[in-house]
Amino acid sequence: MRTGLWLIGARGSVAVTSMIGALAIRAGLAAPTGCVLETPELRHDALPGIGDLVFGGHDISSTPLDKKAAALAEAGVVPDGLASAVQDALLGIEQHVRPLPVAATQGETARAIAADLDRFRAGHDLDRVVVINVSTTEPAPSPHLAHADLDALRSALDGPDPVLPPSALAAYAALSAGCPYVDFTPSTGARLPALDALAREKALPYGGHDGKTGETLVKSVLAPMFAQRNLKVRTWSGINLLGGGDGANLADPAANAAKAASKQRVLPETLGYVPQGDTRIDFVEDLDDFKTAWDLISFEGFLGTRMRMEFTWHGCDSALAAPLVLDLARLTAAAHRAGRTGPLTELAFFFKDPLGEVPHGLAEQWQSLRAAVEAYASAPR
Amino acid sequence: MRTGLWLIGARGSVAVTSMIGALAIRAGLAAPTGCVLETPELRHDALPGIGDLVFGGHDISSTPLDKKAAALAEAGVVPDGLASAVQDALLGIEQHVRPLPVAATQGETARAIAADLDRFRAGHDLDRVVVINVSTTEPAPSPHLAHADLDALRSALDGPDPVLPPSALAAYAALSAGCPYVDFTPSTGARLPALDALAREKALPYGGHDGKTGETLVKSVLAPMFAQRNLKVRTWSGINLLGGGDGANLADPAANAAKAASKQRVLPETLGYVPQGDTRIDFVEDLDDFKTAWDLISFEGFLGTRMRMEFTWHGCDSALAAPLVLDLARLTAAAHRAGRTGPLTELAFFFKDPLGEVPHGLAEQWQSLRAAVEAYASAPR
Amino acid sequence: MRTGLWLIGARGSVAVTSMIGALAIRAGLAAPTGCVLETPELRHDALPGIGDLVFGGHDISSTPLDKKAAALAEAGVVPDGLASAVQDALLGIEQHVRPLPVAATQGETARAIAADLDRFRAGHDLDRVVVINVSTTEPAPSPHLAHADLDALRSALDGPDPVLPPSALAAYAALSAGCPYVDFTPSTGARLPALDALAREKALPYGGHDGKTGETLVKSVLAPMFAQRNLKVRTWSGINLLGGGDGANLADPAANAAKAASKQRVLPETLGYVPQGDTRIDFVEDLDDFKTAWDLISFEGFLGTRMRMEFTWHGCDSALAAPLVLDLARLTAAAHRAGRTGPLTELAFFFKDPLGEVPHGLAEQWQSLRAAVEAYASAPR
Amino acid sequence: MRTGLWLIGARGSVAVTSMIGALAIRAGLAAPTGCVLETPELRHDALPGIGDLVFGGHDISSTPLDKKAAALAEAGVVPDGLASAVQDALLGIEQHVRPLPVAATQGETARAIAADLDRFRAGHDLDRVVVINVSTTEPAPSPHLAHADLDALRSALDGPDPVLPPSALAAYAALSAGCPYVDFTPSTGARLPALDALAREKALPYGGHDGKTGETLVKSVLAPMFAQRNLKVRTWSGINLLGGGDGANLADPAANAAKAASKQRVLPETLGYVPQGDTRIDFVEDLDDFKTAWDLISFEGFLGTRMRMEFTWHGCDSALAAPLVLDLARLTAAAHRAGRTGPLTELAFFFKDPLGEVPHGLAEQWQSLRAAVEAYASAPR
Repeated sequence: MRTGLWLIGARGSVAVTSMIGALAIRAGLAAPTGCVLETPELRHDALPGIGDLVFGGHDISSTPLDKKAAALAEAGVVPDGLASAVQDALLGIEQHVRPLPVAATQGETARAIAADLDRFRAGHDLDRVVVINVSTTEPAPSPHLAHADLDALRSALDGPDPVLPPSALAAYAALSAGCPYVDFTPSTGARLPALDALAREKALPYGGHDGKTGETLVKSVLAPMFAQRNLKVRTWSGINLLGGGDGANLADPAANAAKAASKQRVLPETLGYVPQGDTRIDFVEDLDDFKTAWDLISFEGFLGTRMRMEFTWHGCDSALAAPLVLDLARLTAAAHRAGRTGPLTELAFFFKDPLGEVPHGLAEQWQSLRAAVEAYASAPR
Repeated sequence: MRTGLWLIGARGSVAVTSMIGALAIRAGLAAPTGCVLETPELRHDALPGIGDLVFGGHDISSTPLDKKAAALAEAGVVPDGLASAVQDALLGIEQHVRPLPVAATQGETARAIAADLDRFRAGHDLDRVVVINVSTTEPAPSPHLAHADLDALRSALDGPDPVLPPSALAAYAALSAGCPYVDFTPSTGARLPALDALAREKALPYGGHDGKTGETLVKSVLAPMFAQRNLKVRTWSGINLLGGGDGANLADPAANAAKAASKQRVLPETLGYVPQGDTRIDFVEDLDDFKTAWDLISFEGFLGTRMRMEFTWHGCDSALAAPLVLDLARLTAAAHRAGRTGPLTELAFFFKDPLGEVPHGLAEQWQSLRAAVEAYASAPR
Repeated sequence: MRTGLWLIGARGSVAVTSMIGALAIRAGLAAPTGCVLETPELRHDALPGIGDLVFGGHDISSTPLDKKAAALAEAGVVPDGLASAVQDALLGIEQHVRPLPVAATQGETARAIAADLDRFRAGHDLDRVVVINVSTTEPAPSPHLAHADLDALRSALDGPDPVLPPSALAAYAALSAGCPYVDFTPSTGARLPALDALAREKALPYGGHDGKTGETLVKSVLAPMFAQRNLKVRTWSGINLLGGGDGANLADPAANAAKAASKQRVLPETLGYVPQGDTRIDFVEDLDDFKTAWDLISFEGFLGTRMRMEFTWHGCDSALAAPLVLDLARLTAAAHRAGRTGPLTELAFFFKDPLGEVPHGLAEQWQSLRAAVEAYASAPR
Repeated sequence: MRTGLWLIGARGSVAVTSMIGALAIRAGLAAPTGCVLETPELRHDALPGIGDLVFGGHDISSTPLDKKAAALAEAGVVPDGLASAVQDALLGIEQHVRPLPVAATQGETARAIAADLDRFRAGHDLDRVVVINVSTTEPAPSPHLAHADLDALRSALDGPDPVLPPSALAAYAALSAGCPYVDFTPSTGARLPALDALAREKALPYGGHDGKTGETLVKSVLAPMFAQRNLKVRTWSGINLLGGGDGANLADPAANAAKAASKQRVLPETLGYVPQGDTRIDFVEDLDDFKTAWDLISFEGFLGTRMRMEFTWHGCDSALAAPLVLDLARLTAAAHRAGRTGPLTELAFFFKDPLGEVPHGLAEQWQSLRAAVEAYASAPR
């Protein structure tokens, strides 16, 4: 199964880390640590291999991939030696990373994006191309009537005004070109009724939202623990300190609000009520690609006794996200081959703000994922 | 269903907190926070109610229950008002708390314990009595040939030398008297081949070991998270600072070793390998019934990137343990009624060092527990 | 030396805790833990004693002191027994706590406040009355030309429009009545050129700002440590979670901004540069009078090696503030008796945002304080 | 002033990091971050410069310095580029690092050590050579009568049995050769009456003990803070997780005990009493040269209110120690030139377990150090 992975934001930290990693794993230079599909429970021959992924993508930046790789090595995100070892292979990917098209109308832009996808698929003789958005978080978009209706959307896109935020336009273009779409960010992506209709029309699956790489991951196991032990969580407050590109972007209050909402959703979904407290995101440029989250949970036990728990998570954002991007490409390709269409609710394990009415506890999400892998793998081809 | 709960260590903090709690809940003065069987998923009419439990027990101490209750209120473990409100009811229990018998031979002692149990069951017209050990942790016992054979054990117990550690003698007496036995401590309890044989002979269930109330509880959700995300845990180190009676006892290296081993077991069982690092237990008298655990986990992600997580848990030991003791009494009674015999492996959710070959991740333990509640409740009576 | 302590915000948590404490210490029921003047280095017979302080004050609230005391006991700020033991004495103070006057003009209001102060001083035959503001934090005031000139201020106060924020009006009234004024909050207080002129005209000292009770206290010893070790602090980020009255007030962005600015000032003053990172204040009602601060400091050592430090501070705001209020009353009275006028820069030890060009490292502030106590005590009377 | 720095343990992490650093600073490739003598308050022309230090040393290991440098770069202790940049200069030092002599008697060994020192001094035309011990921690030595008397010691050293632990033998040899001696470890070093007599006989200064690089450094500012605020510290517990050579060595209980005692001394010295709690040291090999310390401090404030503070320190041991070793070489050389003899109590700022009756609070130690620099610099030459 020849699978293309087309990254929106292909020159960013997450994208380039995933490329370096895939190349290094293929070359036997690195182990697939952090790749969920390589755990004993999920490993399956019927899934496309990491080494089988063919990379391409769009970006508004023009920084060469090898320069970005060097910066990632400098920042300690990838080892020096690895960045050098895959340099040539990276140059091979370079020619498939194209400037994000910008045309007079959004319709025209979408057609140009789709044309790039067609060319990539044809040029590499790929069975399918999965499009994954790993660009920076957008502000929440203004509502528009055409978001609810596919025909209205098609007309509106050829009008002079922008109708869709960039992530949704990318999703529209991907689906139009017959490509499954996954959004690794909290941005809109395919999460509009009109785009859901498009996915169903094209018999395509789509996934998202917002890769679960740190604080929320921990919350998704701790909150069920409190619930199962019948301990009443009274307050849950957190702060996320992050640098890097995403940090700078999240310093913008609008983007920040979208992200913070996405991060806090796990609590009511798993506890059944909303404890006091907020989740903050603060930009601290010097932390670069590393982020630190601190959470304080105060809870009440038997006869009202007050207790508390704190945790600190010191993670490297790109190192946590990149292997999940590889997993999602492989899973979405397998889902597509197996004939799955519409929202991939079974991939909730990967997301802070998963599509559909799904469990938010990690353990149940893990069970759904195991079942999905089984189903994808056993589907007739 | 009239159920007796006989506590070994009936005058200790955990026991008295569980009595105050049961009395307060029965009187409508407190909510059953911390009682697992009161979560929506597990609540079931077919289980004995908290208010139906009839308390009795043994202790070597003679501190009156109401004096202990006042001390617990002083230490902030139970609210002042509650300790006063249930004072009369506590005096009612007082008369069923007896000095732990000590006779010339261990056989004789066991018969005296069993006689107390018989008297308690008959005196209150109880359907069954569940014996739970909440006394302080013993050092690991010396091996003895009679531990492996019930007949040899019966003979040896009437000899002059001690054969069993106190917890195992209590288990022997309980099982001999037809009472299911649960060990909430890391001590030996019923965990000997001869006692397993006795339980099967008497068609009784038994459970344990070592109530999971803090650091290990958290480990049992975090370790599976790292495993499922395919993140390699390189080191996991922890320290537990505890005061109170159990803390003082654990300052004894022998008891400490038993406890620390029990606490670290979750890691290989869930990760599949043993990371570097130890779990320490330190006695800090001034912390009283509150304990603080701190853990540092260093892990490796994609391409070898090093990251880490820390957590601090500030808990009140008795407030965390007492509701679980009530749960275990209710569950074990239901299991007995349903005809379960031998080790209650389905109760692993409650224990640091559960009996049998069982999952150590909390989520899977929760599934086992749900299934067990269903099975107990639907068993013909 | 008979000293009055007049509290603006006399029915708030800090004020009532300081009253209960002074009464309990006078009665021999409590030790003066947390009172800086009771350390061996600073204890001095020439200072007024805690037991000598006569309490009075203004408040806009009318909650009786004993009711507030009961609430403080309930919240764990003061022991149950102590609140009851001093109940009668508290009723004695009750009659000297008056509603904060509000008249047609600010000038008239100030005269009413001053009249209350005169009456209090005369009624108790006091040598002097120290006024301390412990009411909630105000937003930063709008600038006004009259703030810079005492004559202009006097005229403007009799006009129809408000000229001064409440804290500055209180300072104006206190100084007009011949009373030294101390601001324990970040509010304006006496920190205006016109009020400085008034203090000098009346030969009175004044002090402030913003009691240093938690996170900033820790910063004031850690930042000098990094500086003295020539370690380069790259980022210093913090979050403060607080409930209680002050927390609710600080949820207001304007008040929050004033406070956060005051909290961060210690870093440039001690390090000599401004590291990246902010200090956040979040209101979490359920935490009540307890607050938790968490700080992350990332620093660079030899040859650029990156390291970090974190700390968490779990404090009880009123319990930390109240003894300092008693200290400040005693010190300011002694300073006044010794003839000190103008800003009491020597009391920087107590404040987040001290008056004047003073050291911000705690150790140097301690040396200034020791010298001040010596000077006050040795002044001719 | 030509100053030699002779390191006992010259092939260890601390030594090699200090060499790389001195070479890099001399070449203008690195800033002297972490070097205390480069703060504005202490910088002084009269002190020997970092670039003026001439390195030599003894070690039992024979790992080449450049190989050790590469390992330090690999471990992230020094930057890759720097280790390469100073490679040639490091080869220059290599020839002055000699195997630690081992002869038939300790007296003979000492003479061989002294001969190496003489040769080094003469060969480089040095004004003086400061010997600093940075080898791994020894177990506490057995007492010996000759420790108390210089003549007895001289005789005993020529007997067949070992009299002195290695660090004290090195101190004996250094002092005999006219070299000041500093112990950066908790080992015995010059801390014996007979060696003090030798130092005085030779008019030499000596210093120590146990470089203060992490947890104890923080304690030395926090403990005075609690004392000055009159807050009663009830418990202070800590754990140090460390890998690297020193970690492995400290896994030995005897060495561990010496170190833990040294670490806890700051509390009684600054608080005036001993709070409950211990300091643990745990070896976690995988942490390598990085160490993590966590401390929990529970304290009592006004009216007995309980509060607490926690801190975590993630430091790189060698990066923290190496600049202090350079500082100590420069200071000790200046002290020697200025005619100081006997224990350098004024250097307590650098040590966990300083010589003499000195303040243990960092701020006071800083004042002593400032005064010492002034005194050394202004001494007639």
